[in-house]
Amino acid sequence: MRLRKKPWAKEYMGKFPELVTDQPYEKRGKWRTLFPGTDPDAPLHVEIGTGKGRFITEMAMAYPDRCFIGVEKHSSVLVTGVQRVEENPPPNLKLIEADVKHIEELFDEGEIDRLYINFTDPWPKKRHAKRRLTHPDFLNKYRTVLKSDGEIHFKTDNQGLFEYSLASMSQTGMAFQNVSLDLHNSGMEENIMTEYEEKFASLGMRIYRLESWYSEGEF
Amino acid sequence: MRLRKKPWAKEYMGKFPELVTDQPYEKRGKWRTLFPGTDPDAPLHVEIGTGKGRFITEMAMAYPDRCFIGVEKHSSVLVTGVQRVEENPPPNLKLIEADVKHIEELFDEGEIDRLYINFTDPWPKKRHAKRRLTHPDFLNKYRTVLKSDGEIHFKTDNQGLFEYSLASMSQTGMAFQNVSLDLHNSGMEENIMTEYEEKFASLGMRIYRLESWYSEGEF
Repeated sequence: MRLRKKPWAKEYMGKFPELVTDQPYEKRGKWRTLFPGTDPDAPLHVEIGTGKGRFITEMAMAYPDRCFIGVEKHSSVLVTGVQRVEENPPPNLKLIEADVKHIEELFDEGEIDRLYINFTDPWPKKRHAKRRLTHPDFLNKYRTVLKSDGEIHFKTDNQGLFEYSLASMSQTGMAFQNVSLDLHNSGMEENIMTEYEEKFASLGMRIYRLESWYSEGEF
Repeated sequence: MRLRKKPWAKEYMGKFPELVTDQPYEKRGKWRTLFPGTDPDAPLHVEIGTGKGRFITEMAMAYPDRCFIGVEKHSSVLVTGVQRVEENPPPNLKLIEADVKHIEELFDEGEIDRLYINFTDPWPKKRHAKRRLTHPDFLNKYRTVLKSDGEIHFKTDNQGLFEYSLASMSQTGMAFQNVSLDLHNSGMEENIMTEYEEKFASLGMRIYRLESWYSEGEF
């Protein structure tokens, strides 16, 4: 993703404290209390690398009975997500400026019901493998913050990243369901698209998708 | 596969007892002793649903230091594999007429180093899922006859079967490596093709491939 610097982004986002959570690391273990209008048992779904926020904002509007958090490292990108919904922010949505590598400081053990990873940077060079959000080092962090039956839902247009992730996830003890190697020709009914997804799918490129969970001890 | 009945096949194969093993269930646990010219520690690689035998016969010729067995239910198909090599049968190859569902009666626990499943019938209807050679019922049988670090190498042109198998294998405790979602455009160097593979790949269709093993307790 080309990153256009927006030095005004941080200050701009500060005007929407109900939507953009300030000092997010202080909310660790208390995220569900920050969605006052929602059921205290509502599941918490988190998208990492949320980018310009199209997916997470549409999900929040489509599923008002779940709580959503979008985590994005770059304020210059995240601010677009804020602008999408600032006039009428869904009460079940928070956007956070934070780096996913600190996810264990953002969320308590077992705090998250589902993680979404959508169209993340494939880092195609082998020497950059550790930066891929499906590298085992990341997967082990996700395991900590996910409930024991929590799921990761992963979509990408990048064949190499999907191949890599099938290996890294399975080697980290994850099992899969609802695998699609061509999502937009699979007859899937509910699919909220990201910005990238719409662009790539409209070019006729395949979109790959899977749902996964940590399955140790189940066999 | 369209099956042309060849009532003469059984009798024909009987003329090559060194190549086509008679009474194969009696050889359970003793397969390695049936390859007299080979190293007693040579790995045993078995292809199930070996069809007309192109893959297994070429593998046997390409890797003389491994022992190969091709298992096929239909004598009318297997006989073509016999005809391929009858003039000069590789000493490290056996062909067996048997049904894979009896694989535990054919091979002893841990007797096999590697299983190949190539272009098996996808049985696309859900009610036929139990017939797919990557159904958990089959996978659990393979686990018995494979060494604890044994591998399954699986290739197919069928997207639906590959998606299903990623789920069924991972849910049966298997991990993956060397996953390819487009084998013939992946830069893979060594790849011995089956009859189907050559046909489908020449039509520009994707070939899917993975290597997998039972990984419980490794994490």
